[in-house]
Amino acid sequence: MGITLQELADRVGARLVGDPKKLLSGVGTLTHATTTQITFLSNPRYRKHLEGTGAGAVILTESDLSYCPVDALVSSDPYLTYARVAAFFVPDTRDNDGIHSSAVIGAGANVDPTATVGPHAVIGANVTVGAGAIIGPGCVVQRDVVIGAQTRLVANVMVYYGCRIGCRVLIHAGAVIGSDGFGFANDKGIWIKIAQLGRVIIGDDVEIGANTTIDRGAVEDTVIEDGVILDNLIQVAHNVRIGAHTAMAGCVGVAGSAVIGKHCAIGGGAGILGHLEIADGVTVTAMSLVTKSIRERGVYSSGTPLQPSDSWHKSAVRFKQLDEMARRLKQIEKELADLKKKG
Amino acid sequence: MGITLQELADRVGARLVGDPKKLLSGVGTLTHATTTQITFLSNPRYRKHLEGTGAGAVILTESDLSYCPVDALVSSDPYLTYARVAAFFVPDTRDNDGIHSSAVIGAGANVDPTATVGPHAVIGANVTVGAGAIIGPGCVVQRDVVIGAQTRLVANVMVYYGCRIGCRVLIHAGAVIGSDGFGFANDKGIWIKIAQLGRVIIGDDVEIGANTTIDRGAVEDTVIEDGVILDNLIQVAHNVRIGAHTAMAGCVGVAGSAVIGKHCAIGGGAGILGHLEIADGVTVTAMSLVTKSIRERGVYSSGTPLQPSDSWHKSAVRFKQLDEMARRLKQIEKELADLKKKG
Amino acid sequence: MGITLQELADRVGARLVGDPKKLLSGVGTLTHATTTQITFLSNPRYRKHLEGTGAGAVILTESDLSYCPVDALVSSDPYLTYARVAAFFVPDTRDNDGIHSSAVIGAGANVDPTATVGPHAVIGANVTVGAGAIIGPGCVVQRDVVIGAQTRLVANVMVYYGCRIGCRVLIHAGAVIGSDGFGFANDKGIWIKIAQLGRVIIGDDVEIGANTTIDRGAVEDTVIEDGVILDNLIQVAHNVRIGAHTAMAGCVGVAGSAVIGKHCAIGGGAGILGHLEIADGVTVTAMSLVTKSIRERGVYSSGTPLQPSDSWHKSAVRFKQLDEMARRLKQIEKELADLKKKG
Repeated sequence: MGITLQELADRVGARLVGDPKKLLSGVGTLTHATTTQITFLSNPRYRKHLEGTGAGAVILTESDLSYCPVDALVSSDPYLTYARVAAFFVPDTRDNDGIHSSAVIGAGANVDPTATVGPHAVIGANVTVGAGAIIGPGCVVQRDVVIGAQTRLVANVMVYYGCRIGCRVLIHAGAVIGSDGFGFANDKGIWIKIAQLGRVIIGDDVEIGANTTIDRGAVEDTVIEDGVILDNLIQVAHNVRIGAHTAMAGCVGVAGSAVIGKHCAIGGGAGILGHLEIADGVTVTAMSLVTKSIRERGVYSSGTPLQPSDSWHKSAVRFKQLDEMARRLKQIEKELADLKKKG
Repeated sequence: MGITLQELADRVGARLVGDPKKLLSGVGTLTHATTTQITFLSNPRYRKHLEGTGAGAVILTESDLSYCPVDALVSSDPYLTYARVAAFFVPDTRDNDGIHSSAVIGAGANVDPTATVGPHAVIGANVTVGAGAIIGPGCVVQRDVVIGAQTRLVANVMVYYGCRIGCRVLIHAGAVIGSDGFGFANDKGIWIKIAQLGRVIIGDDVEIGANTTIDRGAVEDTVIEDGVILDNLIQVAHNVRIGAHTAMAGCVGVAGSAVIGKHCAIGGGAGILGHLEIADGVTVTAMSLVTKSIRERGVYSSGTPLQPSDSWHKSAVRFKQLDEMARRLKQIEKELADLKKKG
Repeated sequence: MGITLQELADRVGARLVGDPKKLLSGVGTLTHATTTQITFLSNPRYRKHLEGTGAGAVILTESDLSYCPVDALVSSDPYLTYARVAAFFVPDTRDNDGIHSSAVIGAGANVDPTATVGPHAVIGANVTVGAGAIIGPGCVVQRDVVIGAQTRLVANVMVYYGCRIGCRVLIHAGAVIGSDGFGFANDKGIWIKIAQLGRVIIGDDVEIGANTTIDRGAVEDTVIEDGVILDNLIQVAHNVRIGAHTAMAGCVGVAGSAVIGKHCAIGGGAGILGHLEIADGVTVTAMSLVTKSIRERGVYSSGTPLQPSDSWHKSAVRFKQLDEMARRLKQIEKELADLKKKG
């Protein structure tokens, strides 16, 4: 129920200053951590809290070390080192080893002996589950899916037939992978469904948030490249491609066939229309709507600032008159020029 | 594991030009399809890809036929014919026939012998499940629900008590039908719940996307009419009515008691406030907010265009000054008129 | 299958005018209720419908009583009395008493004998389930969670390890409590996960909508105070605090470490950026984006009004020119002043 400071230092490659046998059982903040918790100092603004910390140990840089009243792990990047340290304190939440007796496994499914399948999970025919993978309680994986090694579907995750999920992927509760894209032909006002026969292909080291949905391609595949991180309640439509190491905050919606570059950052609630391209390294701020392709890296926004509703209402009314205002402005400039000429 | 071109032609009513015995096992795009795949050409822009196609067959119009180097199905509406063809290639993803041994069926429930109830599904008391319906793994259907013939709840779908779902409805994973509307009385700052005693009534031939939520009515019902198509992560509040054959893209939110017409198209992430009406045939563009009733068919928008954040910020600051700018403009016009009079 | 008017009057503390033995089995609207249904009149606008009502009884104020053609319950706040009356008509939708045979209960879990655990629910090790609590079908509760008395998780709800949920909380289907916050360090372009080791702490008398997600804290906890009501498809990020009796409509997104006051009302689809504070009693209108702390109670908005797309497009183009327009306006004012001086 704990780990020694020495063991932590060794595992994350940090220099230990203090008691190697100190037992740590969790993490805390600089201001609230107790003697069995480890914390970190990465932002210089918080150095003032170092002096009074009650933590068992602090991860910090060489230059902050002399101010530290307790044991320390010294690192050139304390936040990164904290990331590696914190991973040791995640409890094992699996309900069983191997395949739970209540799980249903389809014909021809190949579950690695080191994988875990939780209670009431349903694994379809010919599914492959890799080494060390965890299919949590209530997850439903339809036929012909491939799930890579060390990948975890936390609980009540649904993966539709034929999708492929890479290694070390973490998919949170309620996420849906491979649901039908929103594709319909219109026959005199009546929507005729287009069967969605592509797949979702997810790379390695991807994280997908709770209740996020990723639709399968119509003919070809929807693709989430390696290292992408998606927050909760995101909608990714059919045939979208999200480039490697791109991050999307909660509630983003991406319409069909959009192609998003690598290392992009899409703010919460932003929308991206279909059939457009976004270059590598683009940032879109929260709740902005991307209506055209973005060819240059940079930061992009839309929307208007928050105001007290009374004054907002006045601005909003004027927004509708903007074109007329612009024309009147031009007319005034003309008349003024005439007057000056005369004068 | 395949279907002949003749059989496809017969089933969808298209004219076959080529080898009637050719075996097809899937679909592809004009540029990537292989010899066992069928594709289609409906947009004239893509005719240039016809010459080089490696597809086993192409669905196209009479006028494109002479350019086709491979077998063909000729149709006056190739996209519609493709819709019908593609439906043959959807694999059977059911885990069992009939009622799975792990499913829990309540007293008085009436499951048609031709229906399928998947592993770990829970069917409440007095539920009716129609002919050929499929209740997928992990679905929960509370008491007194009626589910029509050929309707499918894919997996982990939840339907609350008393709701009625029509025939040939497809409800994707994680969707929630009939959860309580957001109705509360306020008693000196404390919210007092109003029991939501209406139902959700869903017509025939409706499709509902993954993780979409539709709340039950407060007293009367929330109604989704025939042929409506809803994408993923949509929220439909209590007492809403959505007219027949209306389409909503992902992440739309519809507030309580809104009444939306038939054949409308609501763009992704759009919002519709409560207690208003939208006429038939209205289109609302992505991420627009409808704050008043719309009486005339047409296309409606709100929002501002995407800009690099630096220049957006300047516009945003000025947006707050709009009313003052309009007043100054008026003052200038007055002074200019005075000057001209004097002049 | 019914309750007498006398019993209802006694239970909610209203004065009965009419037949105490009248049997009521449900609710209806003033215009559509039938003789076995009870309805209410709280908005004076609807008094005109009182005369023609076919309801079995009407809840109304003393001053409306003389207009009532049927039995009545008299109350100083008819809507509040209706709230209490309606609660009697919610059917029992539990599939079983006690712990269903298909539920999986972890080692050391402590389920109160008066609690219900539904089919296929999974309760982790050392979980506590309070008196009268209902864990519905398909719910997954990871280890070390505490669930208070009379709390209900409707179905397919997921609660991650260590979270604490108060008493009389109602969590709708598909909601996810305690999923990992979206916390990553960036190591030369690669996202490195920060284990999220805080919890979600939910107070008493909270309601959480279908498919809503609430992330666990990174180090400390995400907190939802007493009496908060959250609609469907809301995303609450890590370390957020939502003050008591605050209401949020559907599709709201709250970014990490935002602190929201008590008695706030956040409109549907609104966004709240991270690390900011919102005072008590603040209202934010639908689809507004809060980008800075709000220190004063009041009503706040952002966005632009809906227009026909043609005219909207003209306004949108001018929005990009706003700063230039403002500069030209200033220049004109200067020139005009010069002209007048000369004149």
